[in-house]
Amino acid sequence: MDIKAFLQGVKDGSIPFEQAEQMLLKMPYEDLGFAKLDHHRGLRGGFNEVIFGQGKTPEQLGTIFAHFASQDKCVLATRCTLAHYEQVQNVCPDAKFDPVSKTIVLSTTQPDTGCIAVCTAGTSDMPVAEEAAQTAEFFGSRVCRFYDVGVAGIHRLFSKLEDIRKANCIIAVAGMEGALPGVLAGLVDKPVIALPTSVGYGANFGGLSALLTMLNSCAEGIGVVNIDNGFGAGYLATQINRLAEGKR
Amino acid sequence: MDIKAFLQGVKDGSIPFEQAEQMLLKMPYEDLGFAKLDHHRGLRGGFNEVIFGQGKTPEQLGTIFAHFASQDKCVLATRCTLAHYEQVQNVCPDAKFDPVSKTIVLSTTQPDTGCIAVCTAGTSDMPVAEEAAQTAEFFGSRVCRFYDVGVAGIHRLFSKLEDIRKANCIIAVAGMEGALPGVLAGLVDKPVIALPTSVGYGANFGGLSALLTMLNSCAEGIGVVNIDNGFGAGYLATQINRLAEGKR
Amino acid sequence: MDIKAFLQGVKDGSIPFEQAEQMLLKMPYEDLGFAKLDHHRGLRGGFNEVIFGQGKTPEQLGTIFAHFASQDKCVLATRCTLAHYEQVQNVCPDAKFDPVSKTIVLSTTQPDTGCIAVCTAGTSDMPVAEEAAQTAEFFGSRVCRFYDVGVAGIHRLFSKLEDIRKANCIIAVAGMEGALPGVLAGLVDKPVIALPTSVGYGANFGGLSALLTMLNSCAEGIGVVNIDNGFGAGYLATQINRLAEGKR
Amino acid sequence: MDIKAFLQGVKDGSIPFEQAEQMLLKMPYEDLGFAKLDHHRGLRGGFNEVIFGQGKTPEQLGTIFAHFASQDKCVLATRCTLAHYEQVQNVCPDAKFDPVSKTIVLSTTQPDTGCIAVCTAGTSDMPVAEEAAQTAEFFGSRVCRFYDVGVAGIHRLFSKLEDIRKANCIIAVAGMEGALPGVLAGLVDKPVIALPTSVGYGANFGGLSALLTMLNSCAEGIGVVNIDNGFGAGYLATQINRLAEGKR
Amino acid sequence: MDIKAFLQGVKDGSIPFEQAEQMLLKMPYEDLGFAKLDHHRGLRGGFNEVIFGQGKTPEQLGTIFAHFASQDKCVLATRCTLAHYEQVQNVCPDAKFDPVSKTIVLSTTQPDTGCIAVCTAGTSDMPVAEEAAQTAEFFGSRVCRFYDVGVAGIHRLFSKLEDIRKANCIIAVAGMEGALPGVLAGLVDKPVIALPTSVGYGANFGGLSALLTMLNSCAEGIGVVNIDNGFGAGYLATQINRLAEGKR
Amino acid sequence: MDIKAFLQGVKDGSIPFEQAEQMLLKMPYEDLGFAKLDHHRGLRGGFNEVIFGQGKTPEQLGTIFAHFASQDKCVLATRCTLAHYEQVQNVCPDAKFDPVSKTIVLSTTQPDTGCIAVCTAGTSDMPVAEEAAQTAEFFGSRVCRFYDVGVAGIHRLFSKLEDIRKANCIIAVAGMEGALPGVLAGLVDKPVIALPTSVGYGANFGGLSALLTMLNSCAEGIGVVNIDNGFGAGYLATQINRLAEGKR
Amino acid sequence: MDIKAFLQGVKDGSIPFEQAEQMLLKMPYEDLGFAKLDHHRGLRGGFNEVIFGQGKTPEQLGTIFAHFASQDKCVLATRCTLAHYEQVQNVCPDAKFDPVSKTIVLSTTQPDTGCIAVCTAGTSDMPVAEEAAQTAEFFGSRVCRFYDVGVAGIHRLFSKLEDIRKANCIIAVAGMEGALPGVLAGLVDKPVIALPTSVGYGANFGGLSALLTMLNSCAEGIGVVNIDNGFGAGYLATQINRLAEGKR
Amino acid sequence: MDIKAFLQGVKDGSIPFEQAEQMLLKMPYEDLGFAKLDHHRGLRGGFNEVIFGQGKTPEQLGTIFAHFASQDKCVLATRCTLAHYEQVQNVCPDAKFDPVSKTIVLSTTQPDTGCIAVCTAGTSDMPVAEEAAQTAEFFGSRVCRFYDVGVAGIHRLFSKLEDIRKANCIIAVAGMEGALPGVLAGLVDKPVIALPTSVGYGANFGGLSALLTMLNSCAEGIGVVNIDNGFGAGYLATQINRLAEGKR
Repeated sequence: MDIKAFLQGVKDGSIPFEQAEQMLLKMPYEDLGFAKLDHHRGLRGGFNEVIFGQGKTPEQLGTIFAHFASQDKCVLATRCTLAHYEQVQNVCPDAKFDPVSKTIVLSTTQPDTGCIAVCTAGTSDMPVAEEAAQTAEFFGSRVCRFYDVGVAGIHRLFSKLEDIRKANCIIAVAGMEGALPGVLAGLVDKPVIALPTSVGYGANFGGLSALLTMLNSCAEGIGVVNIDNGFGAGYLATQINRLAEGKR
Repeated sequence: MDIKAFLQGVKDGSIPFEQAEQMLLKMPYEDLGFAKLDHHRGLRGGFNEVIFGQGKTPEQLGTIFAHFASQDKCVLATRCTLAHYEQVQNVCPDAKFDPVSKTIVLSTTQPDTGCIAVCTAGTSDMPVAEEAAQTAEFFGSRVCRFYDVGVAGIHRLFSKLEDIRKANCIIAVAGMEGALPGVLAGLVDKPVIALPTSVGYGANFGGLSALLTMLNSCAEGIGVVNIDNGFGAGYLATQINRLAEGKR
Repeated sequence: MDIKAFLQGVKDGSIPFEQAEQMLLKMPYEDLGFAKLDHHRGLRGGFNEVIFGQGKTPEQLGTIFAHFASQDKCVLATRCTLAHYEQVQNVCPDAKFDPVSKTIVLSTTQPDTGCIAVCTAGTSDMPVAEEAAQTAEFFGSRVCRFYDVGVAGIHRLFSKLEDIRKANCIIAVAGMEGALPGVLAGLVDKPVIALPTSVGYGANFGGLSALLTMLNSCAEGIGVVNIDNGFGAGYLATQINRLAEGKR
Repeated sequence: MDIKAFLQGVKDGSIPFEQAEQMLLKMPYEDLGFAKLDHHRGLRGGFNEVIFGQGKTPEQLGTIFAHFASQDKCVLATRCTLAHYEQVQNVCPDAKFDPVSKTIVLSTTQPDTGCIAVCTAGTSDMPVAEEAAQTAEFFGSRVCRFYDVGVAGIHRLFSKLEDIRKANCIIAVAGMEGALPGVLAGLVDKPVIALPTSVGYGANFGGLSALLTMLNSCAEGIGVVNIDNGFGAGYLATQINRLAEGKR
Repeated sequence: MDIKAFLQGVKDGSIPFEQAEQMLLKMPYEDLGFAKLDHHRGLRGGFNEVIFGQGKTPEQLGTIFAHFASQDKCVLATRCTLAHYEQVQNVCPDAKFDPVSKTIVLSTTQPDTGCIAVCTAGTSDMPVAEEAAQTAEFFGSRVCRFYDVGVAGIHRLFSKLEDIRKANCIIAVAGMEGALPGVLAGLVDKPVIALPTSVGYGANFGGLSALLTMLNSCAEGIGVVNIDNGFGAGYLATQINRLAEGKR
Repeated sequence: MDIKAFLQGVKDGSIPFEQAEQMLLKMPYEDLGFAKLDHHRGLRGGFNEVIFGQGKTPEQLGTIFAHFASQDKCVLATRCTLAHYEQVQNVCPDAKFDPVSKTIVLSTTQPDTGCIAVCTAGTSDMPVAEEAAQTAEFFGSRVCRFYDVGVAGIHRLFSKLEDIRKANCIIAVAGMEGALPGVLAGLVDKPVIALPTSVGYGANFGGLSALLTMLNSCAEGIGVVNIDNGFGAGYLATQINRLAEGKR
Repeated sequence: MDIKAFLQGVKDGSIPFEQAEQMLLKMPYEDLGFAKLDHHRGLRGGFNEVIFGQGKTPEQLGTIFAHFASQDKCVLATRCTLAHYEQVQNVCPDAKFDPVSKTIVLSTTQPDTGCIAVCTAGTSDMPVAEEAAQTAEFFGSRVCRFYDVGVAGIHRLFSKLEDIRKANCIIAVAGMEGALPGVLAGLVDKPVIALPTSVGYGANFGGLSALLTMLNSCAEGIGVVNIDNGFGAGYLATQINRLAEGKR
Repeated sequence: MDIKAFLQGVKDGSIPFEQAEQMLLKMPYEDLGFAKLDHHRGLRGGFNEVIFGQGKTPEQLGTIFAHFASQDKCVLATRCTLAHYEQVQNVCPDAKFDPVSKTIVLSTTQPDTGCIAVCTAGTSDMPVAEEAAQTAEFFGSRVCRFYDVGVAGIHRLFSKLEDIRKANCIIAVAGMEGALPGVLAGLVDKPVIALPTSVGYGANFGGLSALLTMLNSCAEGIGVVNIDNGFGAGYLATQINRLAEGKR
C-alpha cells in the first residue's frame, strides 16, 4: 500500500483512525521477544527469510524455524553447527543441513532462474563459496560451480571460461592474494561479485590482503562484499540474476 | 570466433598456418608505444573505450583522443584537468568537459537504457557521484540524480524513495560515516552499489571509515567499489542495467 | 572539605599538624593489598563503587564484596562469570547476577531518576546494551529498552521514535556497520552516546568499523565510548540524566 | 505536529488531501540547488543553522549567508578562510570572523546559559578548542576557557580545578598523548567530552594516538568525538548544558 | 681482551696461531644443540644469564638450569609455567618460582644497589610489573613497588610522590590509556621507563593504545619498551641504576 | 609441446580435431573431486608436487599421497600434524615425517645440487627455517644450517660467515626485530631470501615488525617472502640454486 | 619547599592564610597569554627551558626569547626555521641557529658533563641526530658523534666500537629498517636510546617500520622514543648521563 | 684476504703490528665528511657504486660524482631531479640522465650478461620499472622490457609469454591490485621478483594493497621488494642473473 492509497483510506474513512495509527506504527513487524521477525520482508524485497545462526543457541534457532514452519514459509539459516541442526530437525523434520557451507534450509521449491557462476581460487575457499551458492539456490537461482581455478595455474581457469561466460553473474571467491575476480572481470562481460575469504596465513591479516586486492582491481565490473560473506554475495547475485531474467 | 571455429579453420586450411599463429598471438591489441589500446574491448565487453587521465600528460591524452576519433569511436576520459581538455579540444573539437566530475567525453549517442539512481549523502560527494553518473551515461544508461539525501536528515531520503525505487540499480555515494548504502539497501529491492568517498576529516582515514561501514552493512544486496572510484561504480551499474533491460 | 577550609583548620589549630599531614597523604583511600578501594569516590563523584570483574579471581571478588557489604555500601561488578557469582553469593546472599550483561549487583535502592533510552541495532548487541542499562539503573536512572531497531529495517526504528524522544539521553548500541547512532542523532534533540560493539565478522576488525562510523557521523550531538564499553556508556548517561533532573 | 494530530487533520478534512501529501513529502526542506537547507532544524533540534565552510567556494558561502540573513536567522560557519569571510562580509556586514577558530558568526544574541569549561593540554590545541567554544557560544552557552593545562605539568591543572568543577560540562582538548580528558574525568563529577586533536608528530598518526588514549581511558564519564571536531564537541556540550539548565 | 692485546699476543707468539684462530672463531659461545648459551655475556654486559621460558619445553628449561647450576651461575627465566618450575626444581632445588611474574630465579645474592621505583596504573598491570621488578632484583637492584596509582584517581599517585622521587629511575607500567608515564615524567626528574601492557579491551588493540600514548607523551625523559616487556624494562632500569651508583 | 608444434599437428592431421580440442581444454589437469592435481607442474616448472596440509583432513591427505605414490611420484606435504602422518603412513609406508618443520616427504632421491645456507636469528625460528630447508632438500638442493646467529650477539654470526658465503643463496629467517637479512646482505654477495616469522610478542603484530624491517632494509640483494612461509623461501632458493648450478 | 615545611609555616603563622592559598594555587607559573612558561621547571627538573618552535609564529618565538633573555636564562628552541631565527636575532643577538638540526640556542655555558655517543645509520638521519646532540649539549653533556655507521655495512660500526663504548649512554638513530639500536645494544653494556626516524620510502610508513624494529629488538637495554623525536632522546640521555656523573 | 692469511701475516711479521691494526680498523672505507663512501663494495659485492639521490643537494651529488670520476669508477644515482643532473653534468660531462627513471649514470661499459625480463601491469608503473631496468643494465645485465601486460587484459600477457620465459629472472612490476607477479610465477619456471608500486588510488594505501597481494601469492617462486624500490629489484635480479651466467 503506497502513501496515496493510505491517505485516501484515512480521508474516506475506509481506514478508521485507530487502525491508521496502528498501521503506521506497528504493522511492519511482530515481536518474538529476542528478535523482531520481519514478515514483510519477503513482500518488500521479493526474498524469503534468512537467519544468521552464529551467536544464537540451538533452542533459539529451533523456535525461529518452528515459527516460520507453522506459517509454511521458507527459511535459510547460515553459520550453523550440527548442534543447531539437531535442534531444528526436532521441530522441522524437512529442514536440510549442508556441512560444508554450514547452512540449514527449509524450502519446498527448486532453483530455476537463470544461472550464477560460483568460482573459487582454491579448495579452501569452498565453505564460503558454498554459503554463497546455497543462498542463491535458496532464492531460486541456478548455480554452476567452478572450484579450484585460481590464477596460480591459470590454464585451469581458461579451460572453463566458455561455461563461465554463459552465466548472468559471476561470484569470484578467493583468499590469499585474491586475484581471481580481477582476472575474471577482464575475461567476461557480466557483473563480477568479488568475495574475499580469510583463507591464508602470514600477512593476509584475516582476509584483508584479498579484500584490498579486489577493491583495487584494474578491471571494471566488480562489486566487493565483506570477507567470508557468502550470504551477501549470494543475495546480491540473485538480485542481479532476477533482473536479467526479467523476474523482478 | 570461438575455439571450435578456430580449430576447424586451422584444420580445413581456411586459416593458413602463419595467420593462425598471428591470430593467437597478435590479434587482440595494437601498440601505441606508451600504452596498449584494446580495440577488441568494445566487442568483448560490450563497452566503449575509457582512459584514466590522471598521470598522463595533456599531449598523451590528446594523441589518444585523436587516435580514437580517427576511427569514429566514442571515448571517455576520467580524472582530467582543464589543461587536459584544452589539448584534447585542439584535436577533437566535439569532445566535452564536465568540470565537476573531471571527465572528457567524445560521444555521438544519447543515454537511453533503463534507469540508474545515483544518490549522495552530501554535496561534497558530488564530484565522485558525477564521475559515476557520466560514466553510466557514456555507456548508454539513463541516470536519475538524488543528491544530499544522507542519513543525518533521513526525512530527505524518504521523500525521494518512490522515485529511487523505480531504478534498475542504485549507486549510493557517501563519505564520512558512509551509512547511506546500508539504509537504502534496507528500503529498496534492487542491487545497491556502494561507493565510498574520501570526503571527511579526523578519523576517516582517507575514506576508510566509509569503506568499512559499507562492507559491514547489515542490509543485503550491496556490492562495494574502491574509494572515490566513480568510474567503477558507473561501469558496474551499467552492466546490471543492461542485464535488466535485456540488452546484453 | 575544600582547600580553604583545610587551610583554615590548620591555621586555627582545629586540625593538628600531624593530622593535617595524614589527611593530605593518606585520607583518600585505604589499602586492601591487591587493590586500592576508593571510599571517597561515592562522595566525590556522586556515584557508588564499581568493580571490573574480568581478570579477578572469584576469591578476590568475594573479598571485595564482603568488604563493602560490611559497610552497607552498594556495589556493581561488571564482566563477571557464574563462578564469580557463586563466590560472591557465599558472602553476600543479597547480591544478584544478570547472565546477559554478566553483572553482579548489590543494591537496596530502585532506579527512579529521569529516563535513559537504550537502543540496539540487533539482538547480538544485547549483552553490551544490558551492561549499559544495568549500570545506569544501579546509579539510579530509569532505563527504557528499544532492542533490534537497526537501520537495515528502518521502519522498526520509526515506530518507536516517539518513545525514544522522551528520554533525557540515548545510548545507541551497534556493531557491524554502526550506523544507528548517526541516524538517531538526526532524529532526536538529546545527547546520543554511541556505543560500538565488536559484533560482526570479516572486515569489522573487532568493532573498529562500528567505532569509525560513529566517530565520523555527519549528525551532531554524539559522544562515543570504547568498543563494548557498556559500563562507560551507562555511567556517562547517568551523569547527563542527573544534570537533566537537576540532581546535582 | 505529531502523528495523531496529523491523522486527525486528514480525517476531519482540516488538512486537505493534496496538502497532506505535500506535508509528508516536501515539508521538511527547500532546495537551493547545491545544498538542501534544513529550515526545520532549528525547530526540531532547538539549534540554529551551521555551515561546514571547507570545500565550499566563497561565492557559495556568501549565497548561503545572504539566504539566511534575509530571514533574520542566526548562522555559524566553521572551517572558513579569510577569503570566505570577505565574500560573506559583502552580503552580511554584521557577520564576524574569528581567525583562530576559523569561524564566521552571524548572530544577535549573547551566550547566557549555564557554563561549559573548555580545557586544552597545550597552546597548539587552541584552534580546535576555539571552534568548540565559538560553537557553544553561538548556541547560547557561556564558556570558560582553561588553556595550556596539560598533564605534563599537572600543577597547572590543579590550580584551576575549583573553577573547572563549576561548569555543567567539560570539553577536554588534547593532541599528542591525549591524557587530559582521563585525568580530568577522575577529578570532576560532570560529563567530560574528549576532543582529540591532530597536533603532534611521529607516531601520533594524525591524532590517532590521542583518540585511542581517550577511548581507552580508565576514568568514567567520558564521551569522545572525532579528531579535530571542535564543532561536534561544542554542539554536544550545549545539549548537555541545556539539559542541566532545564531549558529543554 | 681488546684488539691491541690480541694482536700483540699473536705477534709475540704468546698466543699460538691455532689458538688465535680458535679464539676469534669459537670463543664467544658453546653449543648446546638447541640454543647457543653465551657464557661471555656476564662478562661483556655485566649481567647474569636470562632465559626466555615461553616456547621451551620443561625438559629444555631443566637442562639449561642444570647446565648453569653446574657452573655456579645465577639464572633468571621469564614467561615460565608451573610445569616449567616442577621440572627445574628436580635439577635445581634452590630455584624459586614467582607465580605472579611467572619467573624462575636461581640466585644466591641479594639486591643491594640503589633503588628503582616500579609504579603501575592498576592491579591488572601487576604481572608485567613484577616481571620488571624480579628482573631488576635479580641483577642486584633494590626495588620499591607503587601499585594501583593510575591517573584516573590521581590523588593516590600524589600521596606516594615523595617516595617515588627518591629512586634513581622509575618504571611506569600501564595498559588501557597508558597515561601514567607521562604524568610521572612531569613530576620527577629521573629517567622514566614506560612499560605498556596489553591490559584493556575494545580499541586498545593488544596494548597499542598504551604504547602510542607513551611514545607521544608531552613530558620529557621517557624511554619506551615493547608491550608487556617487563624483562626489558627491568634490565634497562638496572643499567641506569648501576650508572647512578657508580658501579660501572 | 609449444604452440607452433600444436598448430602444425592440427594442420597436418597428426592431431585429430577432437583430440586437439581435448588437449586445449582438459590436458593440463585431472579432477580428484576436492582438488585439481596438476600433473604437468613437475614438467612445467621442473619441480615435484607439493601439498599444503593445513585445512585438509588426514583422510584427504592420505588419498592424495596414495594417488601420487601409485604413479611413483615424489610428494612433499607442509603444515602437517602427527594425525596426518599416521594416515599417510598407512598408504605410503615410505613417507617420512619431520616433527619440527611439520613436513611429510615421500621421495627416493637425495639432495645433491649446489648449497643453500639457511640462517636463523633465534632457536624459536627453527620450525619455519626447517620448512624452508626440507623444501629445498626435497627439490634436490643441499642445505647448510646456521641457527641462532641473530644480530643481538653478532659475534656468533661472524664466526660462521666464511661458511655462509660459500652458498649460492642464503635464506635468512628472523622474527621479532627481523634484522638478520639486512645484516647478512651487507656481508655476502649472493641473493638473500628474507623469511620473516611470527615469533615475538608485544608490538610485533604477528610478524609484521619483522616483515617491515626486511622490506625496508638498507642493504641490497634481498627478496622477501610472506610471514612464516618457509615453503615459499625454500622453493625460490631452489630456483636460484638451480640457475647457479646451470641446471635449467 | 616540601609539604611539611609548608604546613609548619601555615601553622606557626609565618605563612599567612592568604599567602598560603596563593602559594598553593598560583605559584608554579606565570601567564604569558598564549603559553604558560614554567619558571620552576629548571628548579624542579634540573633542566633549562625548551621551546617547540614548530607552529609558532616568528613573532611569538621572538617574544618568548626576549622574555627569558631579560631574566638571563638559557633557552633552546627546536623545529625552527630561518624566519624564526631572524626574528629571534633581533631581540637576542647572542642566540645561535644550527641549520641542520633546526635549533636556536641561547646559552652561555659549555657542555662539560660525561659523554653521550650519538650514532646514525645513514647520513639522512643527521637532522634528527643533531636535534638530539644539540639538546644534550644545551643541557651540559659532551657529545661524540658517529654518523653513517648502519648495519648494511657493519664493518664501519666495528671500527668505531671502542670509542662508542666509552660513553655513558648511546643514542642510536635510524630510519628505514631501524636495526642499528639492536645491534649496538648487543655490543655495548650501556643504556641505548633508540631514536627512529621517518627516513625511508615505500612500506616504512613514516617511520613505523623503524619504530617497530626497535620495540621488538632481541637485545636488552633499549628505551625507544617517538619517531624523529631528537629532543626527547637528547633529554633522556642527559638525565642518564647526569646520574652516571653523580650530578643529579 | 681471509682471516687465516691475516693472522699468518701478523705472526710472521709480514704485516707489521701498526699496519695490522690499521687494516682491521680503517681499511674498509674512507671518510668524505657527510657520507662514508665504500670503495671496497665493488670488490666485496662485485657491484659498482650507487648513490641515493633523494635528500641530497645537487652540490653534494656533484661532489660525489666528481670523486668517483677522478678514480675512473662507474656510478649510478637514483631518485634524481633535473637540478641534480645539471650540477653533475658540470663535473662529469659523460654522465647521462634518464627522465623516466630519474637516474643518472656514469658508465663506460655495455650490458652484456644474460637477460632479465622487466614486466609492468600498466603504463603508470613505468618509472619504477625503468629504475629497475636501468639499475640492472648499469650492473651489466641485458634487459627485455614488457610493459602494460597486466592481468585485467590477460591476453596481452599471453602473447609475450614465450619471450618472457627466455629470461633468467623476471621483475614483475604492478600497483593497484598487484596481481601480475602471481600470475607470471604460475606461468614461468624462473625466479620472479615482485616489485609493488604506489600507483593507484582509494584503498591502495600508498602501495600496501599491491604489496600484500604479492606477499600472499599462491604461486611459488616469488621474492618481494619494498614499494617503488626499483633499484632493489634491479640489484637482486642482477645477482640472480650473474649466478645463472656463471659470472659470480
